[in-house]
Amino acid sequence: MLPASAATTVTTSFPDSLRGRFLVFDGPDGSGKSTQLRRFVAWCHERGVPVTEVREPGGTSIGEHIRNVLLDPANDSMAMRCEMLLYMASRAQLFEERIVPALAKGELVLADRFTSSTLAYQGTAGGLAFEDILAVGKVATGNRWPDLTVVFDVDEKVAASRLSPLLDRIEQRGAEFHRRVREGYLRQCRDYADRYRTVDASKDPDTVFDELLGVVGAFFSVTPRRA
Amino acid sequence: MLPASAATTVTTSFPDSLRGRFLVFDGPDGSGKSTQLRRFVAWCHERGVPVTEVREPGGTSIGEHIRNVLLDPANDSMAMRCEMLLYMASRAQLFEERIVPALAKGELVLADRFTSSTLAYQGTAGGLAFEDILAVGKVATGNRWPDLTVVFDVDEKVAASRLSPLLDRIEQRGAEFHRRVREGYLRQCRDYADRYRTVDASKDPDTVFDELLGVVGAFFSVTPRRA
Repeated sequence: MLPASAATTVTTSFPDSLRGRFLVFDGPDGSGKSTQLRRFVAWCHERGVPVTEVREPGGTSIGEHIRNVLLDPANDSMAMRCEMLLYMASRAQLFEERIVPALAKGELVLADRFTSSTLAYQGTAGGLAFEDILAVGKVATGNRWPDLTVVFDVDEKVAASRLSPLLDRIEQRGAEFHRRVREGYLRQCRDYADRYRTVDASKDPDTVFDELLGVVGAFFSVTPRRA
Repeated sequence: MLPASAATTVTTSFPDSLRGRFLVFDGPDGSGKSTQLRRFVAWCHERGVPVTEVREPGGTSIGEHIRNVLLDPANDSMAMRCEMLLYMASRAQLFEERIVPALAKGELVLADRFTSSTLAYQGTAGGLAFEDILAVGKVATGNRWPDLTVVFDVDEKVAASRLSPLLDRIEQRGAEFHRRVREGYLRQCRDYADRYRTVDASKDPDTVFDELLGVVGAFFSVTPRRA
């Protein structure tokens, strides 16, 4: 017979351990993260885990207006600090309007890009300091951060080969910019190893998805739920 | 005969002491600050002081796009943090594109609203903490602040009587909101007394302008130029 205390121990198995969690899929343009995200959402739904899926920039009506300002190639004189703050504004709206209520309902929130994108694109590649971006990010989301950020890592040549020929204002930046974007993601994986994981996104989609499930499953089986 | 050292002392008289300075006129909607600003610009021009005049939100092509998102009454579900970050994004663009170059040329920069508006509207009236707004403002403008902010103080009843019946999204907020806006300005005048001055804007325009000249002149005759 088990001791009485064991009866109060609740073990939640994966993917149920994803309920009420905030998970980000991120990586360079062309990393295949959005395809993997759709597949992961379907996988969760099949197993009865409710998912709220959001994308950045945008994801709300107001965010879509901001997205239009951000990605319009006509706005090519935009200051990097302005660009960063617009992403943060869209994020603040998305966070309050969709992410906080979904987490409160116990859903898994799965975001296609988040502050990790700003650190890579406007930070390492764009020249802004991580500490400045994090100071603004802290205000934008009331100091709540994702439980886990999965970075889909791919070198800039493979990424470029996967992109559509119709590029938006950010995607139009050259190969050196995109090399630095990747470097920005890898720096985050080193600096914040307790809440970032990497997946090798250069492989075929099935292999990437298997690795993704392994990585996310391992993370949430050993990481205690935050208060 | 004067001692030799006196020959090297340069005294700059008002309004020449305004060259290369960053001056903000701020206050509640209906305070008359924009009318006073136009008059002050003309006064400076007549005395040979070059002025770059900017207004917020907007003042640049990109800023005008942001202004449209901010003031559109359809965006009534905008989160206060989103609103604050949009003002800051517009400000960052204005700062880099127009304010910094004008200051570098030795012009007086005269801004119709700046971070002081965000502290009053989104801070005291909107519920965001001053420290959060200042943390973002520091990043938006690279920690450079106005030399002087003049607050045109007027109570909410006088201010409301001067407003057009066609109100934008911010102006539509009620009397209690506008009372707190005024309180937000007065708090800044108390907390940052070394770089804020108040003008009684309830009086007739000529009297207000005379007080304005006295206040600005006194400030720049006794305050050493910042490095």
